[in-house]
Amino acid sequence: MKKEYLLTPGPTPLPPQISLAMAQPIIHHRTPQFQEILKEVSVNLKWVFQTVNDVFILSASGTGAMECAVINLLSRGDTALVVQGGKFGERWTEIARAYGIIVEVIDVEWGKAVSAEEIAKRLKACPQIKAVFTTLCETSTGVDNDINKIAQVLKNSAAVLVVDAISGLGAVDLKTDLWGVDVVVSGSQKGLMLPPGLGFISVSPKAWKLVEASQSPRYYLDLRKAKKALDKSDTAFTSGITLIIALREALKMMQLDGLENIFARHKKMADAVRAAALALGLELFAPSAASNAVTAVKVPAGLDGEKLVKTMRDVYGVTIAGGQDELKGKVFRIAHMGFIAEFDIITGLVCLEKVLYQMGYKFTIGAGVKAAEEVFLK
Amino acid sequence: MKKEYLLTPGPTPLPPQISLAMAQPIIHHRTPQFQEILKEVSVNLKWVFQTVNDVFILSASGTGAMECAVINLLSRGDTALVVQGGKFGERWTEIARAYGIIVEVIDVEWGKAVSAEEIAKRLKACPQIKAVFTTLCETSTGVDNDINKIAQVLKNSAAVLVVDAISGLGAVDLKTDLWGVDVVVSGSQKGLMLPPGLGFISVSPKAWKLVEASQSPRYYLDLRKAKKALDKSDTAFTSGITLIIALREALKMMQLDGLENIFARHKKMADAVRAAALALGLELFAPSAASNAVTAVKVPAGLDGEKLVKTMRDVYGVTIAGGQDELKGKVFRIAHMGFIAEFDIITGLVCLEKVLYQMGYKFTIGAGVKAAEEVFLK
Repeated sequence: MKKEYLLTPGPTPLPPQISLAMAQPIIHHRTPQFQEILKEVSVNLKWVFQTVNDVFILSASGTGAMECAVINLLSRGDTALVVQGGKFGERWTEIARAYGIIVEVIDVEWGKAVSAEEIAKRLKACPQIKAVFTTLCETSTGVDNDINKIAQVLKNSAAVLVVDAISGLGAVDLKTDLWGVDVVVSGSQKGLMLPPGLGFISVSPKAWKLVEASQSPRYYLDLRKAKKALDKSDTAFTSGITLIIALREALKMMQLDGLENIFARHKKMADAVRAAALALGLELFAPSAASNAVTAVKVPAGLDGEKLVKTMRDVYGVTIAGGQDELKGKVFRIAHMGFIAEFDIITGLVCLEKVLYQMGYKFTIGAGVKAAEEVFLK
Repeated sequence: MKKEYLLTPGPTPLPPQISLAMAQPIIHHRTPQFQEILKEVSVNLKWVFQTVNDVFILSASGTGAMECAVINLLSRGDTALVVQGGKFGERWTEIARAYGIIVEVIDVEWGKAVSAEEIAKRLKACPQIKAVFTTLCETSTGVDNDINKIAQVLKNSAAVLVVDAISGLGAVDLKTDLWGVDVVVSGSQKGLMLPPGLGFISVSPKAWKLVEASQSPRYYLDLRKAKKALDKSDTAFTSGITLIIALREALKMMQLDGLENIFARHKKMADAVRAAALALGLELFAPSAASNAVTAVKVPAGLDGEKLVKTMRDVYGVTIAGGQDELKGKVFRIAHMGFIAEFDIITGLVCLEKVLYQMGYKFTIGAGVKAAEEVFLK
């Protein structure tokens, strides 16, 4: 009789209509029937990516989409600038270096957003930088970067701006074309409310010139092949048929809601979680740049952070995320993205209070939930 | 009220218990709960791969697994021998060349199996060959290669043997360890009865030495990362959670059946389809090396092969496959693999007779079905 609740920053819970779509008999991918689905999904992906550029669907998880961006844009010996303020910023660096790309790193203190001025400074100092890799929502620290401001900096630069929006897309506003973002990568298991397994990448005409010039070896993730296929409403290789059919449902749901409402809902949940944490006397890990997709909270001194997460999950069925790498045991993260709603947040907070209490942490019972309720009542 | 029947060589139909497993609420992948599933699946994958070596799970479709094999084994300037007897043999060549690998090609006439003697000859003539890439079932032509014989040839060679068993695994016998196959790659949407989206690769100790030596740039498909994760019952990157949970069900079903029974069932269905084709006066495309996973049949002179496939699918709901590339319009292919059973084959044959009749082809109505029934009655 144990009920399970998922409040993690990927995978996020699946809406029942998406689960049912996936349970339908499978169809073949080289048929007019599937082609129709791909056409519809391609149009609606542009809507959620806020771009008129092609959005390519890869049968890979988010890291595959990140690698796709790196190798299609740059060649061995090229220089990239990477904003590194968490585990996923570091991933850009690792991928680029694996392909012999020279990486200029902006080391941002974990929990802080990057300063656009710093990017401007580095671009000026190193004019050979061909691409700037950054992160919309750095999942490991719960930080949202100001992509609009960063894009302004790059407006008159020769470099392209690449944004990892794996966690952020469909949760946090990202006006790809309006702001002038060249490449956006994302994944299926976050704001898009699907299981993991699909990666996405949108490419501006400016970035496409780099795709055509790139000498990096590539095949499965070659965007030239993806483009040739997409122009015929097809995919270069066997695609994740079931997930694409589910994606169609997810995009329909999102369109019924509207992007403005979706972003407002995420912000409200984020505000509620943050208000609750503060009301419980807890400290936010990223107070100056807290993400609307996921909140990282510092584990109070003297408490075992890993035990907290484990007890919530294994005893009470509420799965939140712990800290990764250098934050292991030091923070816990509550996701408020995708198909997570107001009452799920309340459930998560009640469970958090319960386990904090049992672990001997001192606070007023109900204070966190009350603070969250007050935000939701506004 | 139109019913749909899928007789394609990937995707293959999904068993209802697998669809239901996929419709369950999703769980997080960095939890002891998912770790247990990964452990079980890892053991059972070894069983279906007939190996004691690690079988790595990639969140990618079959081509991703093929690229994984190439780049983890070889570096720019290395030499590979590729058996090229169809579209998927050609893919080995394309991938290898994309990474600067020198490819010696054995061009096998489409519809024929490769001769092991030819491989021996080529290996002898070119001792710098580090790896031989071949195909168990060449889906595009419906040919099974004799991997046992090929493995004998390589037994005392320094080169490793790599087999694309994307279509063949779980349909056609492949005694990986007993025969001495070093690397086997496969995909989820064929004999394993799942949707596409997972790739698999098993690696022998001899091949692992190449993995450690390879200088090919790689990150997402880096087997060293996959190994490090697998040793902790984890995956290097977010995995295809839903498909892995479905894979657990598929492997359970297969174990209940037993490999011998599974291969015998595939052979019987293959025999039935071939007997039916001949009874209808049709010609097999690969009579000397016909696959037990998929049968390619020549389109009779004067008939429009593409129209045949299209009518079966769009008018009667029976999806078979047409020819690819140079075989477009010249063959049609009926799959008998995975969750396709005796009566599905009968359905496919009755529909084939129906459409052949309507297209003006002359034959005795019922002759194909009768021949198939006779095989099944044996």
